[in-house]
Amino acid sequence: KIDSDRLWQSIMDMAEIGPGIAGGCNRQTLTDEDAQGRALFKSWCDDAGLTMGVDKMGTMFMTRAGTDPDALPVYVGSHLDTQPTGGKYDGVLGVLAALELVRTLNDAEIKTKHPIVVTNWANEEGARFSPPMLASGVFAGVNTLDYAYGRQDLEGNTYGDELKRIDWVGEEEVGARKMHAYFEYHIEQGPVLEAEKKEIGVVTHCQGLWWLEFTLTGKEAHTGSTPMAMRTNAGLAMARIFEMVEEVTMAAQPNAVGGVGQVTFSPNSRNVLPGTVVFTVDIRTVDQVKLDGMRDAIKEKAAHICAGLGVGCSVEQVGHFDPVTFDAGLVEKVRNAAVELGYSHMDLVSGAGHDACWAAKVAPATMIMCPCVDGLSHNEAEDISQEWATAGADVMLHAVLETAEI
Amino acid sequence: KIDSDRLWQSIMDMAEIGPGIAGGCNRQTLTDEDAQGRALFKSWCDDAGLTMGVDKMGTMFMTRAGTDPDALPVYVGSHLDTQPTGGKYDGVLGVLAALELVRTLNDAEIKTKHPIVVTNWANEEGARFSPPMLASGVFAGVNTLDYAYGRQDLEGNTYGDELKRIDWVGEEEVGARKMHAYFEYHIEQGPVLEAEKKEIGVVTHCQGLWWLEFTLTGKEAHTGSTPMAMRTNAGLAMARIFEMVEEVTMAAQPNAVGGVGQVTFSPNSRNVLPGTVVFTVDIRTVDQVKLDGMRDAIKEKAAHICAGLGVGCSVEQVGHFDPVTFDAGLVEKVRNAAVELGYSHMDLVSGAGHDACWAAKVAPATMIMCPCVDGLSHNEAEDISQEWATAGADVMLHAVLETAEI
Ligand SMILES: NC(=O)NCCC(=O)O
Ligand SMILES: NC(=O)NCCC(=O)O
Repeated sequence: KIDSDRLWQSIMDMAEIGPGIAGGCNRQTLTDEDAQGRALFKSWCDDAGLTMGVDKMGTMFMTRAGTDPDALPVYVGSHLDTQPTGGKYDGVLGVLAALELVRTLNDAEIKTKHPIVVTNWANEEGARFSPPMLASGVFAGVNTLDYAYGRQDLEGNTYGDELKRIDWVGEEEVGARKMHAYFEYHIEQGPVLEAEKKEIGVVTHCQGLWWLEFTLTGKEAHTGSTPMAMRTNAGLAMARIFEMVEEVTMAAQPNAVGGVGQVTFSPNSRNVLPGTVVFTVDIRTVDQVKLDGMRDAIKEKAAHICAGLGVGCSVEQVGHFDPVTFDAGLVEKVRNAAVELGYSHMDLVSGAGHDACWAAKVAPATMIMCPCVDGLSHNEAEDISQEWATAGADVMLHAVLETAEI
Repeated sequence: KIDSDRLWQSIMDMAEIGPGIAGGCNRQTLTDEDAQGRALFKSWCDDAGLTMGVDKMGTMFMTRAGTDPDALPVYVGSHLDTQPTGGKYDGVLGVLAALELVRTLNDAEIKTKHPIVVTNWANEEGARFSPPMLASGVFAGVNTLDYAYGRQDLEGNTYGDELKRIDWVGEEEVGARKMHAYFEYHIEQGPVLEAEKKEIGVVTHCQGLWWLEFTLTGKEAHTGSTPMAMRTNAGLAMARIFEMVEEVTMAAQPNAVGGVGQVTFSPNSRNVLPGTVVFTVDIRTVDQVKLDGMRDAIKEKAAHICAGLGVGCSVEQVGHFDPVTFDAGLVEKVRNAAVELGYSHMDLVSGAGHDACWAAKVAPATMIMCPCVDGLSHNEAEDISQEWATAGADVMLHAVLETAEI
């Protein structure tokens, strides 16, 4: 078993760097705080005897040597970057539980055949530089390095320039490493485990995603002096699309979600009907055919709704991942470890995207999840218990040992 | 008939002050530009031999003497302040047509029994200091002077301080003046006259208004990892309320409008269901009972919709005017003038609120409207033709002469 207090203390120490304003963290990608977090993590890895490799995206690979020089490494990690008003655990738990895993092996003087590489992927959050999971995406060949380097924050700083500025441009070609397996431990970011009173989520799949950004064009007009029959009401079209997205999603149950998080009305004045309404529909499910069917239905029905109101409708696909089926063998190892250790557990589909989803494109991969209070994440109030954190780390230790072979 | 070119030239000269960035104007209440506009207008009034009075709200009353010392004045005016991205005609047309009216009487050496007071109401727009029609509201006893002085702009400057700063605090008690009649000429700000191919709107009523600001409280949650059954979806509740407002409004036809211009999602991130959604429903109709019935129905149905989704719902009434029936005698004079002059005309309900609506509380009042292109207003692209401007000014000249008596 891992050292629960040591793991917890490391999480608390990391949370001191880029502290938030309400108990969480603001340690965004390639900021000075990110650099400080990386330096602290590196010092801990140095103490644990790990050897550092860094790739051109700034991802940190911290290697504990194996006994077989020909064996590919087992990668274990997540991310240390946070949302602007992020929690202390999202990503951090996975990286520091991986570190705790090697510390535990060191203490117990256990050697493994396969090297173990504790990994801190760069820019998982995508809050400063969109899209999320950028470095793992380049690693998996989904995005090019040039594309990633050119991504800009709101001030117009590029990823490439900022990576240079904080001095974390590595030598390694991105994606050159070959993996025997990839494990990622993460908080659920949803309410299922807590509601079902389970300590461990055995993650079998990750949902695929489409982000459809709608731009509806109505006629900017006075709310008072424009008769109903003369309106071109983009706000009403938006409302009907929201309801239609709900209907399409409910018809796709079980295991599909759809909703809207971002809306912009222009000019957004109480007595002006909007000229333009922009919003993003986020739909996810684990079945590729169902997912694409939802997308097609939503686009078609939205066009119909808008046509009926005379509202202009354009749709841009601003985000996408395919559904992922995690490696059956690794999933089985995680489930067995939970059973062995006597933790309550259930199979789970990851609702959110993770670096593991891209890693799964190039290696056998899987994830382990622990509950989080009220399913809250991307929020400084994000919370987990030390017991929850520990259970998942123990399960990961056992599953990784099974994979890395003693 | 008035001097069409002189009227048009004055409008164009005024538009030079506080020019917009796209052909319109930015001459907001109590800014330096407002002060410049006032100075230009005063110089024109001086040239026309008018005597200035200013009240404590900064409203300008420019008097052309009458022949009967006991006769109450006929007031004719509108406002010179604009929206931040306003047009050249909204308000300005009414003030400068009133000035043109006295210039025409001067040229023709026509004297009237009743004095004529060209009026520039302060802060009609309400864009910098809410609510709209603030000075006429204090004049009519709807708001107190203290309330008005305390209104703040986005930088926290108060109306009282800014009025002092631009040096337009008058001596007169607000509302002390008694009116024989009040006329206001304004662009329609809606599409009816243009669609019906009429030059003159004979304004018989102004719609009453309720602004209902809804604050819906959902559960901020990840769009991916929160199952449909576990959502508290404030965005969906909003959509259903939008549709319900449309239904309630359509059931109240003819002559009722309802819609939403302002929406704020928080935190407004693509992959976070909103914790809070705030929006304002704007409903208007000419019938007081129907208007209040719409308000009650919307509040009740919204509470029901939210309860069904577990969403918190609070409603604040952030704006209100009662419906106005303009003075039948004055309306008849406007209609007769249009007939006499051979202009096409129709009866019209003002969709927007105007200073005339408050003036109607303390005096016989009415309005005249001209078409505007595409019904566009509160927009720098607001447009009217010189012919349209002239027709309404001619009609007002005749109706005012009938009322002020030669
Ligand atoms: N884990 C996480 O929140 N990733 C961001 C991308 C997503 O919305 O799933
Ligand atoms: N005329 C005008 O736009 N007044 C502002 C108040 C309203 O929305 O009616």
